[in-house]
Amino acid sequence: MTEDIDLPVSSAARVADPDEDITLDELRLAARNHGMPLEALDYDVTPVGLHYLLTHYDIPILDHPSWRLNIAGHVQHPLELDLAALQALPQVTQRVTLECAGNGRAKLLPRPVSQPWLDEAVGTADWTGTPLAPLLRRAGVASSAVDVVFTGADHGIERGIEQDYQRALPLEEVLRDDVLLAYAVNGQPLPPQHGAPVRLIVPGWYGMTQVKWLVRIDVIDTAFTGFQNAHAYRLKQAADDEGVPVTRIEPRALVRPPGFPDFQTRVRIVDRGVHELTGRAWSGHAPVTRVEVSADAGQTWADAVLGPDPEPYAWRAWRWTWEAGEPGRHTLCARATDAAGNVQPVEEPWNVQGMANNVIHRVPVLVR
Amino acid sequence: MTEDIDLPVSSAARVADPDEDITLDELRLAARNHGMPLEALDYDVTPVGLHYLLTHYDIPILDHPSWRLNIAGHVQHPLELDLAALQALPQVTQRVTLECAGNGRAKLLPRPVSQPWLDEAVGTADWTGTPLAPLLRRAGVASSAVDVVFTGADHGIERGIEQDYQRALPLEEVLRDDVLLAYAVNGQPLPPQHGAPVRLIVPGWYGMTQVKWLVRIDVIDTAFTGFQNAHAYRLKQAADDEGVPVTRIEPRALVRPPGFPDFQTRVRIVDRGVHELTGRAWSGHAPVTRVEVSADAGQTWADAVLGPDPEPYAWRAWRWTWEAGEPGRHTLCARATDAAGNVQPVEEPWNVQGMANNVIHRVPVLVR
Repeated sequence: MTEDIDLPVSSAARVADPDEDITLDELRLAARNHGMPLEALDYDVTPVGLHYLLTHYDIPILDHPSWRLNIAGHVQHPLELDLAALQALPQVTQRVTLECAGNGRAKLLPRPVSQPWLDEAVGTADWTGTPLAPLLRRAGVASSAVDVVFTGADHGIERGIEQDYQRALPLEEVLRDDVLLAYAVNGQPLPPQHGAPVRLIVPGWYGMTQVKWLVRIDVIDTAFTGFQNAHAYRLKQAADDEGVPVTRIEPRALVRPPGFPDFQTRVRIVDRGVHELTGRAWSGHAPVTRVEVSADAGQTWADAVLGPDPEPYAWRAWRWTWEAGEPGRHTLCARATDAAGNVQPVEEPWNVQGMANNVIHRVPVLVR
Repeated sequence: MTEDIDLPVSSAARVADPDEDITLDELRLAARNHGMPLEALDYDVTPVGLHYLLTHYDIPILDHPSWRLNIAGHVQHPLELDLAALQALPQVTQRVTLECAGNGRAKLLPRPVSQPWLDEAVGTADWTGTPLAPLLRRAGVASSAVDVVFTGADHGIERGIEQDYQRALPLEEVLRDDVLLAYAVNGQPLPPQHGAPVRLIVPGWYGMTQVKWLVRIDVIDTAFTGFQNAHAYRLKQAADDEGVPVTRIEPRALVRPPGFPDFQTRVRIVDRGVHELTGRAWSGHAPVTRVEVSADAGQTWADAVLGPDPEPYAWRAWRWTWEAGEPGRHTLCARATDAAGNVQPVEEPWNVQGMANNVIHRVPVLVR
């Protein structure tokens, strides 16, 4: 950036005043990014167009024939691959749940001002591509390697810093067998909004890691200090804290809202009687081992019945029989526990950027 | 609805107080419905997942094998068709621009409180299906017929009225050759969010007409008085006005925002120099015959170069060479004129529900 222009652009992260409604800045983001409507929890695999989307800058249009992926930096043999070369490599398909690290942000008090997610920044898809580790081995990663930097073709400015979208991962994460260079989703070539022609998929990590419109992979011998790693995706109590990195997806269960909605408020209307509540639960740390449900706003909890084991990083279905007896307002809740012992909190874990918030899901319903 | 429950649901339409930011109700809608990111103006045909979406209630999941379309009411031979029967009929594909009647609502002052669209509730797709008129002729429409009511499988409550989504059209509009029962978009079966398995397409009319998840078509011998026709989609100056129906799409031109964005504010950063500005323009009344562009916030206007004639109700490309000379803030504008003489207004045409607002597009940019 030239420095002689007074940029009317965002600077430090801020939180809203206690009585401040959603701002126009937040609405502009919400109008272009979108969540998964929660009735789509009915699908094992989220249809394209219903999966959540978060794009920092513009969605680039890349010309597939001229697209190249460069693998460079601290490697013995830098590689340049075109799409045909990538697609000729061994192909795998993995079912993976992705979630935005900012999911739940707009429900925090005070509210961090950024993309204003409520509960719905999630989706599960079948991602097809080729494992990255063999390509890095072919390139010959130097013994001095520390981080691997992934660069997308999307370009913008964020808190005054002009950048291509870049995120780095520690080398040991990158070398996992299940890290993919993906070129198809749900059996179709990637659509533009999901990173066409090629994106990164790192199962278990929040969405900021899943670099779209991938054009470069650089092996570096220091810890990466780029904006998205060093500033944006960190858990901080104040804007100038160093904070700690956001990494894997915290456990979460969502309730498929029962009944039908009011257009404006989205409150659910449910007939008195027996209902089979359903939903999904996931964790990037370990398999989900328990989902509890409450029909009285969290005063009492009961165990849901879990569906079959999903693929390692895909959401798990659950169900629970609810006797909706008393007409009036009720609040349904669900909370997930994973095999590593992580349990969703009942009180929200606040941080200044609203990252990795996984407070339990609450669904207001009106029984008639 | 039982009447003994005090419904915590939306009632009359309201406008926001002058200093009232976006409400949680509006955010809930914005998080599930979404616009077309304006960089997608680059595409002649909007990819699935980037086309705008507005769903009043939940997106229903219909079982395709058991789905039936009933054509009934004031007809001599009621018809029931399954999907295979519909797909065996003559097939046509039409490129059509669809726009939500509420596009631009959130920019109005005072702001009507509903789905808070800015500029982006639009998209253009290739819709494939079979013309409806021959089916109605086969059913034998009674000479007493007035309106035709289209019923979707989506169910909810709106301003206290429980309903399946229903919209009616005058018979003469329904019998147009280009009104389709569509079962594919951009060459693929309709995805759930676009009305699978079958939806209505009425080129030239706003989105409320394009009934999704279609299950019934009823010919009636009176003017339809259902909620969406008689209350929701009307131009009113006050909530209790009778108003006049919203019908065809008013002309609009959008500018493909040049340069690159700031993440939070979406302000565009543009380098000093010559830029080819591009965009699209459309009207549901008649072909677009003129697009004018202003680089000085509407003080002076110049004619853009129009692209080739599109299909009758698809958007038309335009371009204009902009010399971005002076560093600092500028406002780019565009306005469309159609062959019927309709011109976009410079001052916003306000109404209490924010319908059919087509004030000119303004894009703030920062030249560096």
